[in-house]
Amino acid sequence: MIIVNLCKKPAIKCICKFNYCKKLGRRNHNTYICKTNEIYYLFFRRIIMRTKIITLLIVLSISFSYTYSVEHPCLLLTQKDIKDIKKSIGKYPLFDKSFEELKKIADGAVISKIEVPIPKDADGGYTHEKHIKNYNEMYAAGTLFQITKNVKYAKFIRNMLVDYAELYLKIGLHPSENSEIKGKLFWQALFDEIWLVHAASAYDCVYEYMDEFDRFYVEKNLFYPMADFISDGNKNNYAMFNKMHYNSTWATAAVGMIGYVMGNKELIAKALYGSKLDGKSGFIRQLDILFSPDGYFTEGPYYQGYSIWPFMAFAQAIENQQPSINIFKYRNQILLKAVNTAIQCTYNNEFFNLNDALSKTIKTQEIVYAVDLAFKNNPTDKQLLSIAEKQESFTISDAGLETAKAIHQKKTKPFDFQSLLLRDGPLGDEGGIAVMRQGNVDKQTCLTFKATSHGLSHGHYDKLSVALYDNGNSILPDYGSVRFLNIESKHGGNYTIENYSWAMQSIAHNTVTVDEHSHFNADIKLSSANHSNIEFFDILKPEQQVVSGVENNAYNGVSMRRTTALIKLDKFDSPIIIDIFRVKSDSAHTLDFPFYYNGQLVSTNFDYKKNSTELKPLGKKNGYQHLWLEATAKPTKPVACFTFLKDNRFYSISSLVKENTELMLTRIGANDTNYNLRNEPCFMIRQPDSKKQTFVTIIEPHGEFDLTKETVSNSQSNVEALQLPIDNELFTAATIESKNGGNYIFICVNKDFGDSKSRSLKLNGKTISFIGNYYIALY
Amino acid sequence: MIIVNLCKKPAIKCICKFNYCKKLGRRNHNTYICKTNEIYYLFFRRIIMRTKIITLLIVLSISFSYTYSVEHPCLLLTQKDIKDIKKSIGKYPLFDKSFEELKKIADGAVISKIEVPIPKDADGGYTHEKHIKNYNEMYAAGTLFQITKNVKYAKFIRNMLVDYAELYLKIGLHPSENSEIKGKLFWQALFDEIWLVHAASAYDCVYEYMDEFDRFYVEKNLFYPMADFISDGNKNNYAMFNKMHYNSTWATAAVGMIGYVMGNKELIAKALYGSKLDGKSGFIRQLDILFSPDGYFTEGPYYQGYSIWPFMAFAQAIENQQPSINIFKYRNQILLKAVNTAIQCTYNNEFFNLNDALSKTIKTQEIVYAVDLAFKNNPTDKQLLSIAEKQESFTISDAGLETAKAIHQKKTKPFDFQSLLLRDGPLGDEGGIAVMRQGNVDKQTCLTFKATSHGLSHGHYDKLSVALYDNGNSILPDYGSVRFLNIESKHGGNYTIENYSWAMQSIAHNTVTVDEHSHFNADIKLSSANHSNIEFFDILKPEQQVVSGVENNAYNGVSMRRTTALIKLDKFDSPIIIDIFRVKSDSAHTLDFPFYYNGQLVSTNFDYKKNSTELKPLGKKNGYQHLWLEATAKPTKPVACFTFLKDNRFYSISSLVKENTELMLTRIGANDTNYNLRNEPCFMIRQPDSKKQTFVTIIEPHGEFDLTKETVSNSQSNVEALQLPIDNELFTAATIESKNGGNYIFICVNKDFGDSKSRSLKLNGKTISFIGNYYIALY
Repeated sequence: MIIVNLCKKPAIKCICKFNYCKKLGRRNHNTYICKTNEIYYLFFRRIIMRTKIITLLIVLSISFSYTYSVEHPCLLLTQKDIKDIKKSIGKYPLFDKSFEELKKIADGAVISKIEVPIPKDADGGYTHEKHIKNYNEMYAAGTLFQITKNVKYAKFIRNMLVDYAELYLKIGLHPSENSEIKGKLFWQALFDEIWLVHAASAYDCVYEYMDEFDRFYVEKNLFYPMADFISDGNKNNYAMFNKMHYNSTWATAAVGMIGYVMGNKELIAKALYGSKLDGKSGFIRQLDILFSPDGYFTEGPYYQGYSIWPFMAFAQAIENQQPSINIFKYRNQILLKAVNTAIQCTYNNEFFNLNDALSKTIKTQEIVYAVDLAFKNNPTDKQLLSIAEKQESFTISDAGLETAKAIHQKKTKPFDFQSLLLRDGPLGDEGGIAVMRQGNVDKQTCLTFKATSHGLSHGHYDKLSVALYDNGNSILPDYGSVRFLNIESKHGGNYTIENYSWAMQSIAHNTVTVDEHSHFNADIKLSSANHSNIEFFDILKPEQQVVSGVENNAYNGVSMRRTTALIKLDKFDSPIIIDIFRVKSDSAHTLDFPFYYNGQLVSTNFDYKKNSTELKPLGKKNGYQHLWLEATAKPTKPVACFTFLKDNRFYSISSLVKENTELMLTRIGANDTNYNLRNEPCFMIRQPDSKKQTFVTIIEPHGEFDLTKETVSNSQSNVEALQLPIDNELFTAATIESKNGGNYIFICVNKDFGDSKSRSLKLNGKTISFIGNYYIALY
Repeated sequence: MIIVNLCKKPAIKCICKFNYCKKLGRRNHNTYICKTNEIYYLFFRRIIMRTKIITLLIVLSISFSYTYSVEHPCLLLTQKDIKDIKKSIGKYPLFDKSFEELKKIADGAVISKIEVPIPKDADGGYTHEKHIKNYNEMYAAGTLFQITKNVKYAKFIRNMLVDYAELYLKIGLHPSENSEIKGKLFWQALFDEIWLVHAASAYDCVYEYMDEFDRFYVEKNLFYPMADFISDGNKNNYAMFNKMHYNSTWATAAVGMIGYVMGNKELIAKALYGSKLDGKSGFIRQLDILFSPDGYFTEGPYYQGYSIWPFMAFAQAIENQQPSINIFKYRNQILLKAVNTAIQCTYNNEFFNLNDALSKTIKTQEIVYAVDLAFKNNPTDKQLLSIAEKQESFTISDAGLETAKAIHQKKTKPFDFQSLLLRDGPLGDEGGIAVMRQGNVDKQTCLTFKATSHGLSHGHYDKLSVALYDNGNSILPDYGSVRFLNIESKHGGNYTIENYSWAMQSIAHNTVTVDEHSHFNADIKLSSANHSNIEFFDILKPEQQVVSGVENNAYNGVSMRRTTALIKLDKFDSPIIIDIFRVKSDSAHTLDFPFYYNGQLVSTNFDYKKNSTELKPLGKKNGYQHLWLEATAKPTKPVACFTFLKDNRFYSISSLVKENTELMLTRIGANDTNYNLRNEPCFMIRQPDSKKQTFVTIIEPHGEFDLTKETVSNSQSNVEALQLPIDNELFTAATIESKNGGNYIFICVNKDFGDSKSRSLKLNGKTISFIGNYYIALY
């Protein structure tokens, strides 16, 4: 037999049973057939060598039913879906538009030369982007093949998969040194996993088209080795596959989805229940651990948005193939809740910029998937349709179709953006993020208050930090991360060193830094071992929303409590923020309290000295080295007021200061040798020599700057006076006098919290009584 | 008669003929009647005293028909218009929306307490904004009264006008010291003029409602004195009224419009033909002088947009009252042309930011007026409707109605944004602005090239400067002006000192500065006495657009020629800019050539040394004091390449450099003691010790950064090599090699220009022949 003769390793017995030579004239038998067998052999040997006794038994028991027969496609598309989609093309313009976009990708792909380059580049580099383009094209072509039955799409996928199989035989680990968990096609295994999720879908679509030999070839040379590599390729991969991390979600989804397509029960079981099949890791366990009971993903909104994709995609495949698991009902519908929570973590379509976050909108493909699939699995949740309308994009699946159809039938309800507390931790007992909103959704005033656990590897040292949005803009921003995704010239598209030296540090956030050191000394182990707590969150009255958080572990011997209220008062034209930040210690410290602002300084009620002819960094380390010290001031009034303009609105920060308070104006950008940072400005309050300090601050949107009509109104703060008549272990009381008349008192409780507890205190001889954790009234 | 008895100045004979006392019980006769007479007397006396013999005769001849009877309203609204509007309310939703907005203003006004404060504050201050609010409310109420006939609106205007009349008797010049041409109600007479344009319209609407005495009172105490003050109140006012300046347009419009309302031929004549009635000044003369034959307003696009309002509004009043003047046909329809030119001077709805410009969009009320009135007077120009659609706002007049109706009837055509040359100067022979555009309008690549006259008091020292727009964004921006309009805390809302020390200086612009001194040494007299020239402008082939300009007077003994092309080449994915800047002198100079960019530095092909721990200004004066020197570099390759990212696109600046070329990265913001500047970055090429220097630069939009799909393509420049094989007095030739293959040659002619001239030159033994002023081909 000619095949055998061509083998260079006669020791390995060739088990081919088909007349492959004729079918694949262009292929070199050496690499094709013989390598196939070698891999096939090695595959089994590896399983046998590595598996321990107990799991060996399980594997063996599974091996009896090692593969089973599947009706394809079986992942996000089913035969029934295909029929529905075919019938619907031309009926729903929104869906048609997305279909045409996908068709354009597929049509462009099938007329281009297939290129499967040897992996070389990092994020954003040629080979990186090419392999991403390839999987997107295969995904598109697969869907198009199912809907149109035009074999040009199937042929394209088949040829590309065969090329990938050939490539995969040749390559080892990716040469780039940017990641500890390397892939083979990509610098990071994560991307290999994403590749496999897409390739599995494409293969699913052309499974019936490809003949037995083709399937055998790509499964044995590509898909099995890849699934094996991802789940068990080396120590790091094995650990990640079984970790509670969103990368593990991609890993399990990839292995599970290719498992479904190939009808391989072992892969499916590993994906669902972990390598040891004991349920202590794997996809199902991730659903228990990675989301809090409120559907909050511990790494923060950006990664919540990113991870929701493999969660929802794999879940849909599970729902299609193993409906008995009832995956969308699992843990009180945790996945549907997580989609809702992801959207709740946005302002004006942008995700909150917390932890390692890049700019991300609800229009990204992962949120399109998430929304379509969530709606399909809970069609009563019609507010999702308003998000889909904004996305203007649909997955070409029955989920996308159902969503587009419902919009077409005018079933859309506006999404109910709420004030809410998103608890962190699997049990919801590791602090949380409070979101407070007031006003019409587009121009809404929205404050986020972060008192969570660390947030795994993507967490920041930002206990009790706040961020403010208003009038459609980010006003007091959180910096997010320092990363230029996919831009190779910027540290290979990965996080740059400033992500740690700047973005993660406490001083980069709108919270208090003690003695120029970050919370937990920026030690992830320490920080991960502790979490802040939310003491109360009261939104009973929509015009009075109050949250209080505490952090006692960030610094030895220092307790920090922040109580922040979003309150609409009659004499103020917009809701204002009343912010009480108490810092207590037995020894004296220097406290830095920055307000990063987005806008143009308009006026201050203090004279500042600008460093006009020379700039120096504010400090040497812990993030301070990245701040230029632009100006300094000594306050001369009891309240320091700082006003800036953003778009057509003014904002004032009015803060109670002492004689020794120092005011500073800084700008990000020092020690930024590679132009990686954004040069954003900051108003900073420094309180030196302080054992007990309570920062009382009013943050106030006001007035209008109308460039269309060339008019201005209320360009000055409305705060006439600010005082702190009571500040003890039980209560803090602040009075706010408005320039429009009206003197308000705000009282918050500092211990013994309880919504129904009766309180009483004396002020200037008068007794004030109230129930609950806070009090606000004219005084 | 009791009235006479109350007069405190018995020398002035009281000429009252009505029983005013009873009618206006609440008024104090002293200030009311007697002051009236005094003003009346003074008014005539002043005319007699000041007018010279010749004009006296004209005035006297006019005085025979001093006033005449007018049908009201007579300005922007006529009785016929009112009927049409009444019939149309409810028919055209877009128009109804604007009507409702105006009604809301009027309805809010009539239920508020009238307040006419004593003028005190500058731009943005309380009294300033209040008087603006008052005129807007009167204007709204006037229109509402005419349409609804509800007397509450008329009563409001009448009462407010009487209050203003009382105020006007009491006040002198405004106390603020911000302007040389002070107003009485406002810090600058300009605003008094704008006030009067609105008040005249309001008065026009309630003229019939007010009784003879009310009219007599407000005309004699308010309108006549105001018209007199504006046109002749003092030396400065007189000069401005008769100047060729856009403030004079407001002045003549104000005087002329109140003249029409009161039927006063003298005021009308002065407004149209100047104080001396000789036609050497006044509105008609402004039409001759202030616009070039292409409808370009010499101060630049921002002021073109602002001035178009009084031009169009007064013109409509003239058309209504003196149709025989045929004002909209005057000078080859110069006003309609000017409206079109204003819109041509926009990108993505924003006006080009040249000279003293602030951010301004086509949505501003002045452009709404201009577009509606232009369409009314030339309904065949249906492309104006597309602008009106974007404005989403209409004047409540027949002009607004006709515009809204035509949109409703789907007559809209897209506005044809063109590549064009806008010549400067009354005769069109003082240089000009070239606008070159390629691509779909929303994402268009658009380059402006400025080689104009100085531009009066709002001009900058920016000869041969360019600005680039692309993909909907400003990419290489012109800084515009330093001003915070209406924000009192920012230098009273006026231009700040940095407008001169920074924004006007040459180094603030994308052009060459010689020896760190601005063009014409930043002397407005010198600069105004000279202008640049456009040598050729060729847009015959849409994919090859080329302009060449020359400036030989900006520096003694230095000639500057810039030839800039916007060219689409096969091997580049977007149109690129080929920029040849030749500087020649007999002595050696240091040349600075900055590129202000809007975006994030992504990569450079040279190593730069960043000043990470200390920043110092680049220089001491002429704008250099405002630049922080962030980084320096010595190029090591013949082409320095600088790449940045804006939104989802990359941009590369590739420039031919020499061994002694210095590269600098700077940022605006040094010596900015009051936080008035924006901290924008710049890539600057410094060529020291240069007698003859030709900067050859390719500016290249490329690739895509897609955050939705998390992909990147073509993040690197496509320029492989750049050379300058020929550079002499006749020709400059540059070759551009693309990384995608393809070596192009671009040749431009440096003298003996002519579209049909035959050229021939030898390069590397080959003869290249072409016709015209430039040549581009594969080489």
